[in-house]
Amino acid sequence: MPVVSITLLPGYDQATQHRMVNAVANAVRSVIATPEAGTTVFINEVSTYRRDGKVFSEGRAAHPVASEVVRTFLQAMQSRDLGAAQLCLHPDFRMCFPGGVVMHSLPEMVAWAQLRYTRIAKQYEAFEESWQGDSTVVYCHGTLQGTWLDGQTFEGIRFIDRMVIQDGLITRQDVWNDLAEHRKP
Amino acid sequence: MPVVSITLLPGYDQATQHRMVNAVANAVRSVIATPEAGTTVFINEVSTYRRDGKVFSEGRAAHPVASEVVRTFLQAMQSRDLGAAQLCLHPDFRMCFPGGVVMHSLPEMVAWAQLRYTRIAKQYEAFEESWQGDSTVVYCHGTLQGTWLDGQTFEGIRFIDRMVIQDGLITRQDVWNDLAEHRKP
Amino acid sequence: MPVVSITLLPGYDQATQHRMVNAVANAVRSVIATPEAGTTVFINEVSTYRRDGKVFSEGRAAHPVASEVVRTFLQAMQSRDLGAAQLCLHPDFRMCFPGGVVMHSLPEMVAWAQLRYTRIAKQYEAFEESWQGDSTVVYCHGTLQGTWLDGQTFEGIRFIDRMVIQDGLITRQDVWNDLAEHRKP
Amino acid sequence: MPVVSITLLPGYDQATQHRMVNAVANAVRSVIATPEAGTTVFINEVSTYRRDGKVFSEGRAAHPVASEVVRTFLQAMQSRDLGAAQLCLHPDFRMCFPGGVVMHSLPEMVAWAQLRYTRIAKQYEAFEESWQGDSTVVYCHGTLQGTWLDGQTFEGIRFIDRMVIQDGLITRQDVWNDLAEHRKP
Amino acid sequence: MPVVSITLLPGYDQATQHRMVNAVANAVRSVIATPEAGTTVFINEVSTYRRDGKVFSEGRAAHPVASEVVRTFLQAMQSRDLGAAQLCLHPDFRMCFPGGVVMHSLPEMVAWAQLRYTRIAKQYEAFEESWQGDSTVVYCHGTLQGTWLDGQTFEGIRFIDRMVIQDGLITRQDVWNDLAEHRKP
Amino acid sequence: MPVVSITLLPGYDQATQHRMVNAVANAVRSVIATPEAGTTVFINEVSTYRRDGKVFSEGRAAHPVASEVVRTFLQAMQSRDLGAAQLCLHPDFRMCFPGGVVMHSLPEMVAWAQLRYTRIAKQYEAFEESWQGDSTVVYCHGTLQGTWLDGQTFEGIRFIDRMVIQDGLITRQDVWNDLAEHRKP
Repeated sequence: MPVVSITLLPGYDQATQHRMVNAVANAVRSVIATPEAGTTVFINEVSTYRRDGKVFSEGRAAHPVASEVVRTFLQAMQSRDLGAAQLCLHPDFRMCFPGGVVMHSLPEMVAWAQLRYTRIAKQYEAFEESWQGDSTVVYCHGTLQGTWLDGQTFEGIRFIDRMVIQDGLITRQDVWNDLAEHRKP
Repeated sequence: MPVVSITLLPGYDQATQHRMVNAVANAVRSVIATPEAGTTVFINEVSTYRRDGKVFSEGRAAHPVASEVVRTFLQAMQSRDLGAAQLCLHPDFRMCFPGGVVMHSLPEMVAWAQLRYTRIAKQYEAFEESWQGDSTVVYCHGTLQGTWLDGQTFEGIRFIDRMVIQDGLITRQDVWNDLAEHRKP
Repeated sequence: MPVVSITLLPGYDQATQHRMVNAVANAVRSVIATPEAGTTVFINEVSTYRRDGKVFSEGRAAHPVASEVVRTFLQAMQSRDLGAAQLCLHPDFRMCFPGGVVMHSLPEMVAWAQLRYTRIAKQYEAFEESWQGDSTVVYCHGTLQGTWLDGQTFEGIRFIDRMVIQDGLITRQDVWNDLAEHRKP
Repeated sequence: MPVVSITLLPGYDQATQHRMVNAVANAVRSVIATPEAGTTVFINEVSTYRRDGKVFSEGRAAHPVASEVVRTFLQAMQSRDLGAAQLCLHPDFRMCFPGGVVMHSLPEMVAWAQLRYTRIAKQYEAFEESWQGDSTVVYCHGTLQGTWLDGQTFEGIRFIDRMVIQDGLITRQDVWNDLAEHRKP
Repeated sequence: MPVVSITLLPGYDQATQHRMVNAVANAVRSVIATPEAGTTVFINEVSTYRRDGKVFSEGRAAHPVASEVVRTFLQAMQSRDLGAAQLCLHPDFRMCFPGGVVMHSLPEMVAWAQLRYTRIAKQYEAFEESWQGDSTVVYCHGTLQGTWLDGQTFEGIRFIDRMVIQDGLITRQDVWNDLAEHRKP
Repeated sequence: MPVVSITLLPGYDQATQHRMVNAVANAVRSVIATPEAGTTVFINEVSTYRRDGKVFSEGRAAHPVASEVVRTFLQAMQSRDLGAAQLCLHPDFRMCFPGGVVMHSLPEMVAWAQLRYTRIAKQYEAFEESWQGDSTVVYCHGTLQGTWLDGQTFEGIRFIDRMVIQDGLITRQDVWNDLAEHRKP
């Protein structure tokens, strides 16, 4: 039943406008039990906008899609392109791996991983975003496949990553997985 | 810069309206880099509403807050009140625990857990919702504390739960934690 | 695809508001090929309204439903309750009957009819309104049944009435029917 | 007093937009007693529109003007251009003439008419549309002039046509007139 | 041609709403050459409002009418009710009288005036407000009548006052008049 | 807290739109105690507009800025360019100078002034507009400097002008100043 009108300054490209109407429709539907058919969202571009005593003629930049930032980072890590991966990280980046291992740099993490497996790849099941206002949390889960240190391979091992994105950069990565459940003691 | 007007039928209580303006503000801010100060959202109640050839006079029900459904469920499980916990579950409920153990009923899960620890409690760090349209995914992470089967206690062990909520009921629970990292072999 | 917002002063009853959203939806759909499912109309009541230098606090009266005025008039005529029928008529009322017979008063019409049949009744198939701005034209068609002057009965004879309604009163009635096709010479 | 805002996707030409604001103004004024001076209608084009889970970027087609379809058809019939007339008809076309004569094809009708007059033309007094949502009913009335089978001419004989238009095609024509009142027995 | 919609939180009384639609209509008409008949302003009360991360449920207070504050002050001064006059003044009040005489307190001004006339009264021709955002400037002009020190009376002497109002209090009064033109040397 | 949407026909240039959002923001803030940060005004251009039975496709002309008309006039007068000054005047122009001297033509005024000073110039402190609907009153105050008839110079003498502007032309000028306070008898 809701009709949502979003008034924006002109200049946002079509992809950004589509993201916005979809995001807002999902936000509304998370609160009331309205079906898709009853949910209308549109964007109305205004020609002049004044707030806080200032007249604006152009909107703020669009954020990159947070889950795409995460996907780019994970792909770069998988192919061990640490340079590309580093570009996705905020200066204050901090990661936490199974066992509560906290690290701050990618080389540090690579060194840590080398003691656990020789190769690893992620099969993604879903990327899900949680919009927190100043940041977006991206959750990504799926299964791991790879090779243990002893040369044996594994696959189908569950994992989940939680990434916090601010201004298009990852500030925090938390990783959980079932590797320890499957690792031979 | 955005001004968002949400047109609703009257009858939603204040708490629901607050949830909605907050959710929509977060959705908008996940897409464009607008500060809180530049984000305006309001709800406009209309007196008559017609869509799809029908005139509506009352809005759809509000969903219960998904993360509160999850919290209620987790609290009930912790105090082993299976009856209360069951009320939060969808008939098609399915859970998946570390190691990829899939179960469908709470007693089944309790039996499984009894082989692993004698007592467990969750310290929550955050509940985060991801709004998917027809469902809401609630992520809850924090640390576990409890007692192993041998009587030794543990605490500070990381966990994360992913819960899918539809129409106010949990259809799926996925659990990851570091218990295996800490369990004595 | 259209979303129509009608801003009104408060005070119109629910039936009037329903008529208005239905009328507007039909008007919109007469112009573009949008299905019912894609047509949204709502009424927004404002608290203060200023136009032409005047502040209004109450809306104009609702018109009576034009097709109901016509139905009331036709029922009154059928039961020869000329007093009730007269109440539906504008002072400038003028009617035109088959053969181009123009009359201005109900007794005149009754006298004219008595030379043609002794009893007549209308079976309505449809009342359809054409909204002209300052007036509404109501078309009513169906079949006639009754008794000829020679005592023979008739039925199923097609008729159509065109009535012009202004400010809730009928200013003009035009009648066509097939009586002459069936009348014995 | 009403202010009506019609939100549309961009792309409708000016003539269509004019028809729409006029139609909606008439619809509103059929319900409440507001003068033209107090009736404001405008069209607001939005840049992105989402309904029923789909994002639309272009509006639905405009319907042809129903009363112009009827006028085109009647003109073609008058000049006995059955090919042009046929283009205005829906495959399920059905017509009903004075005396309740039901026919389905134009040649059938022409044959029937040849037994009644040798030539006929219509003088239009008004075309009036009744908007029914899925269809538009067009009423056209005026006078007939022509030549009887015996060579005598007639003129000023009242007629009315009721045409149902769906998706720009005539599905039904109902005709009433006073020919029988004037026809020599 | 403009249609102005003012969205407010509920709770403003009718007088305040009337002032607002009138003020906004005048503001709009100061910029474009639209007649009163073409200027529509209405107030739409919303049920929930969120800006800058906060949800508001009640609007800000209405300002007292600036020109009424000035009138109250001038009346109190005329009847030498300095207590009542003082209530209209901001702590930083400053006044400037003909000849460029700057004073800060009412007794100071009364003493100054006693050297010029024994009695004075103002006949108001107009109060006009200039809205400056954080303050409102009220201009009041008309004529003075009174008694000179020598007992002779005067009347019809032009004056104008300029008053700056902030938060309902007068921060500054500037006075010009023709007394010196008429004063006997 | 207010959000003001101004619906206009397209075609107004950016400067006019900026004037309008600023004027309307000031008008709103003159009535309620809302800070700049909480005041949002935007202009929405519509594509088709119907009022009073007419469809408009272009907005009315913008008024020249009233205070700029006044400034232009005062500058022209100061440099005794009577031709340029005259272009700013309405045919019904009327002025009133200190002592209540009423004049209707510029040469008349110049002659009058020549009996009082040989040269005069204005130092402006502020131009303030009061929007009255059909007219705008511009107040301009500051100080005068110039040369008396006896060759002595003066400066810092307070003045205020009140100008009424209609359709971009000055219909009335009222002048007050302290010249008489300073003039040697």
